[in-house]
Amino acid sequence: MKIALAQQNYTIGDFKSNKEKIVRCIEQAKSESADLVVFSEQAISGAPAYDLLNKVTFLELCEETLEEIARCCEGISVLVGMPAQCMNKTISVAALIEDRKIKRYVGKKTIESRDEMCHISSSKGCEYIKIRGKKIAVVVGEDIKTEQEYGEYADLIVNLAHSPYSRGVVEKRYDFYRQLAFMTGKTILYVNSVGGQTDIVYDGSSAAFNSRGEAIALLKSFEEDFQTVDVDGNETPKKIPEQNKTYNVYRAIKLGLGDFFAKSGFKTACLGLSGGIDSAVVLSMAAETLGPENIRVLLMPSQFSSDHSVEDARELAENLGVEYQIVPINETFAALTATLGPVFGELPFNVAEENMQARIRGMMMMAISNKFGNVLLATSNKSEIAVGYGTLYGDTVGALSIIGDLYKSEVYDLARYINRQREIIPLNTIMKAPSAELRLEQKDSDSLPPYDVLDAILYRMIEEGQSREEIINAGFDEDEVYKVYNLVVKSEFKRYQSCPTLRLSTRPMRTGRTMPLTNKYGC
Amino acid sequence: MKIALAQQNYTIGDFKSNKEKIVRCIEQAKSESADLVVFSEQAISGAPAYDLLNKVTFLELCEETLEEIARCCEGISVLVGMPAQCMNKTISVAALIEDRKIKRYVGKKTIESRDEMCHISSSKGCEYIKIRGKKIAVVVGEDIKTEQEYGEYADLIVNLAHSPYSRGVVEKRYDFYRQLAFMTGKTILYVNSVGGQTDIVYDGSSAAFNSRGEAIALLKSFEEDFQTVDVDGNETPKKIPEQNKTYNVYRAIKLGLGDFFAKSGFKTACLGLSGGIDSAVVLSMAAETLGPENIRVLLMPSQFSSDHSVEDARELAENLGVEYQIVPINETFAALTATLGPVFGELPFNVAEENMQARIRGMMMMAISNKFGNVLLATSNKSEIAVGYGTLYGDTVGALSIIGDLYKSEVYDLARYINRQREIIPLNTIMKAPSAELRLEQKDSDSLPPYDVLDAILYRMIEEGQSREEIINAGFDEDEVYKVYNLVVKSEFKRYQSCPTLRLSTRPMRTGRTMPLTNKYGC
Repeated sequence: MKIALAQQNYTIGDFKSNKEKIVRCIEQAKSESADLVVFSEQAISGAPAYDLLNKVTFLELCEETLEEIARCCEGISVLVGMPAQCMNKTISVAALIEDRKIKRYVGKKTIESRDEMCHISSSKGCEYIKIRGKKIAVVVGEDIKTEQEYGEYADLIVNLAHSPYSRGVVEKRYDFYRQLAFMTGKTILYVNSVGGQTDIVYDGSSAAFNSRGEAIALLKSFEEDFQTVDVDGNETPKKIPEQNKTYNVYRAIKLGLGDFFAKSGFKTACLGLSGGIDSAVVLSMAAETLGPENIRVLLMPSQFSSDHSVEDARELAENLGVEYQIVPINETFAALTATLGPVFGELPFNVAEENMQARIRGMMMMAISNKFGNVLLATSNKSEIAVGYGTLYGDTVGALSIIGDLYKSEVYDLARYINRQREIIPLNTIMKAPSAELRLEQKDSDSLPPYDVLDAILYRMIEEGQSREEIINAGFDEDEVYKVYNLVVKSEFKRYQSCPTLRLSTRPMRTGRTMPLTNKYGC
Repeated sequence: MKIALAQQNYTIGDFKSNKEKIVRCIEQAKSESADLVVFSEQAISGAPAYDLLNKVTFLELCEETLEEIARCCEGISVLVGMPAQCMNKTISVAALIEDRKIKRYVGKKTIESRDEMCHISSSKGCEYIKIRGKKIAVVVGEDIKTEQEYGEYADLIVNLAHSPYSRGVVEKRYDFYRQLAFMTGKTILYVNSVGGQTDIVYDGSSAAFNSRGEAIALLKSFEEDFQTVDVDGNETPKKIPEQNKTYNVYRAIKLGLGDFFAKSGFKTACLGLSGGIDSAVVLSMAAETLGPENIRVLLMPSQFSSDHSVEDARELAENLGVEYQIVPINETFAALTATLGPVFGELPFNVAEENMQARIRGMMMMAISNKFGNVLLATSNKSEIAVGYGTLYGDTVGALSIIGDLYKSEVYDLARYINRQREIIPLNTIMKAPSAELRLEQKDSDSLPPYDVLDAILYRMIEEGQSREEIINAGFDEDEVYKVYNLVVKSEFKRYQSCPTLRLSTRPMRTGRTMPLTNKYGC
């Protein structure tokens, strides 16, 4: 028996294009003599559709599209995911089509993702179907983690999923399916979707494992793919490739950024270039993904900018072939300071003036965006965002942040990866001490621990959920832990207003970790 | 048998102060010879605590606080709400204390609120306890809506809740409990919490109804209250007072705004005053809530500001006794325009320059906030926010929006309520045609339908979830409906970055209605 795994990139609510992709795969499956073709969860609608899942017309379009797909299924069986209405609730199902007929829906029981919890209801879970005499357990989404009992008679397990990328997830998922296949002694096929959906990146990496836990199909990561696999034991086992963390992050960002633009019909981007590592990495990724000719860059030096900042920024733009203009902020800053003079009186220069500089830059970038239609990319990293070392409405502005879920040390890793063949990002940008350059001779390390220490504390606090005591017991300096902890608590209000940020970790700051703003406990 | 209803205002994570309030009520209940005192859901922790509910230390503090409370319960029974750990999940329970001993937990089954869905798991639901020979059904939260079968033997139903305010909810709730009491033929006691928690306002309005559906206790709305009620039929029925929608909105805003400041330790606020209705209402509410001496106001006219705008704004500030300063934006705008001149070239004045003005104002207000520590209040209303008629990082900036969930027509209602005794808001502000004044002789009605039509379309679209076809069939102009619909779809990205906004309706834009940004369907 042959089963085709169709790993496709869907657009939310684009029923026509999603249907075309699905039908094309069905045709290919037929041409490869497959008996069954399996698509990912909510393939027909695209996901996560959030409150669209409560719209009757949206769900009706899913049904209509399914019917149109069914008409193309002569001589083949299909399992395709979609949202469906069930007793006034919306559930996630695998629809079974057999020879042009819609036969049944298998619902999802375990609703585990925060993106679905408020929108999708729990349904019955795993069910068994029979195709060509084989009994197949059909499992939708995370039910694969909770459903561990498959009847003796099940020959195969098929899992329709849409599982997003996060740091280390690809290897963890391979391990999970491999072990499950081995433990149950059954062949398992896993079909994931691929593609960026606003801030989420589905990485694909669909796979099939035989009853000995050997991989018999490994679909691409971060790309569409299609593969037909013989489940009767005739496939040669494949070696699971070593995963390179930084390479995966690089591909996740390219896919997420590319799809954010492609699916919204955007072509051109803009950003502010400081000469520092963060904007250098964002620009490099954007130039590779969108093409250097589609990016507009401003260098916006102030009186506190060092010469090397402008030089490094200029060198980077030239290395990438990106058009840049230098627009100093001094005059606007002077005018603003003069106007506010009567209000501020004799009060000394402080954070107000520091933030004013960042906000003038944000305003200039938004003016570029409004004037030319370039979509603004934000440049803050996760370490800064976590401790609030960034100006709200200043350097946090943008339509999308592509490195906002990467710690500073991961941004450096990515910079070195970008430079793997030639020096794109000037070495000086990578080597010099980070600085916001909002006052004379400012360095990040004046007010923050060194980034390696900061990142280690933050990772324990955010990704691992450790308490202050646990982190201190692990050997970190008590004062530094308390300081970092307090900075994280105090800056929650900034993250409430953050822009969409590609999720690359297991704990993205705003979407994966919600803290009450008025709260005496902390975080 | 006497039961005390304790309707208190808790702070999230402030276990000490929450405990003190609870213990004080227990003492009062004892002094009034009550047999049982009932508190609201999650009283010990405050709610919604979001991801704090996953912290072991947070849940341990709940347990410890409960134990401390139990020690004060000599000779009295207590039902108090809190989050608790149950098999590695967090559930919401009513803890029963009898004579200093923690006897049992009754869990909540129905998790319906978006603020809890990702953080609280479903538990067993309604259970029966016996106090002084009476069998009491203990129901936590929304279980009261799903649990309709109460055994013959139950004498009483007690519901610990935390139900937020929204338009029309107080009368709906009274109706619901009254009918439930009548239908089941049992006395029902409902204890709600009261107070603002960031953007949520719990309105209190706790109540008790006898088996004939007559109110025998009606606690205050929008204030703490405490009442002991005899449940043996000796109470005289009370008349449910008529609800005034605008008065309730007024009180909800005062409570939400006041608690946002009090619970965060903020004292002073600031905002930009345009002479228009929105900032006038925000300033009036802020002055009444925080005191005029605690508010700093800037008038930031441009070349496009009409004389009456400055006059109206000045008159309002003087009526309220609020300090104001006039800070024209012209010079900063000129400097910014000059600096961007080489980039913009000969391109004509457009939305870029309009937004620049709004953003200079936003920047000035944030500078005031940073320099003096005043918390910035945003001034956009729901109609504007829905259609994206506001500048991101411009007039949308702020730490809190108090009218962002009120349609423009509701803002006018509130203005008239504020003026109920004397003309605080200048009549001209109420009477004149709304304008953003970002270009010459601009009026909102140049690009939007009149506000009464706009609000009616938006209400159907957002609150009632009607499709375009349904709205057109109700008699609205097809072009206008399509136009409004497209504006709502296109501005979703702005709402993604909105500031915390007091929730006053059944469908607040960001928190109650999540739409995917990249999406071909619409909304």
